Amino acid sequence: MAEPQSIPEDPFLKSLLMLIRAHDGSGAWEAMPDAEVIAPFIVTKEQRREIPLIGDPDPDILWRVELYYSAIGLAIEQRTGFNAAPIMKIHHEGWGRMLLTAGRLVVVNSYLRDLHRFGFDSPQAMIDKAAKIIDGAVAVIERFPEAAAAS
Amino acid sequence: MAEPQSIPEDPFLKSLLMLIRAHDGSGAWEAMPDAEVIAPFIVTKEQRREIPLIGDPDPDILWRVELYYSAIGLAIEQRTGFNAAPIMKIHHEGWGRMLLTAGRLVVVNSYLRDLHRFGFDSPQAMIDKAAKIIDGAVAVIERFPEAAAAS
Repeated sequence: MAEPQSIPEDPFLKSLLMLIRAHDGSGAWEAMPDAEVIAPFIVTKEQRREIPLIGDPDPDILWRVELYYSAIGLAIEQRTGFNAAPIMKIHHEGWGRMLLTAGRLVVVNSYLRDLHRFGFDSPQAMIDKAAKIIDGAVAVIERFPEAAAAS
Repeated sequence: MAEPQSIPEDPFLKSLLMLIRAHDGSGAWEAMPDAEVIAPFIVTKEQRREIPLIGDPDPDILWRVELYYSAIGLAIEQRTGFNAAPIMKIHHEGWGRMLLTAGRLVVVNSYLRDLHRFGFDSPQAMIDKAAKIIDGAVAVIERFPEAAAAS
């Protein structure tokens, strides 16, 4: 885990922070600075290299992966009006698949690998990666709006 | 589990039998009559009522659910030429969601409940249920062929 850094203003990041804090029963994260709340998502290349790819990934990591893609789903909904529901299937050993679907449309189809090392070089890198996935989803919805609207 | 019954000729059922036997390392299922191989999928209403909906369902049940939907995927491929890949997410307590996707299209979207009691009244009931799901998937592909072909 890296030291908390100053973090950019971004609607995706706002959603992610909101989702993380929504899981906080104790109220401790309410007062915690944003940079500290997202600190577990920031893992530098050097730190990543030191994490062994052995056994099942930590449940906390899978929880972060789910939150990350849920925040992506919220951003897709904000941009398109279509609710994008996540479904994740993790196999043992830290690989798997994450889908976001809207109606009959697969708007995000991500293959996940090396989940033990899930994390981003910086808050900005995390935002940029999410923006790329969100843009891809919006483009798919614009291409197949009827499938996204079908039940 | 019901007594083995005589089972109908059906392409879906053939696929299912093939998939079950493909998981058999011992070769014991090779010689076993078809009716016996699918016997664990046949659970009568009376038997179902006796199974408590407590705790996580048996992994063998989840394996059968996956095989059932994989055989449905094969039938969809035979009918349409589109490969339909399953992704299942089971939450605790025996409920969840099963998707089959072809390209960008969700061709099957099943909500699963009471998985502890997964099973069918008879081989014919199992085939009829599968046929309904397959017909639905084929109709969706005919409606959105470009989404099914998109990567």
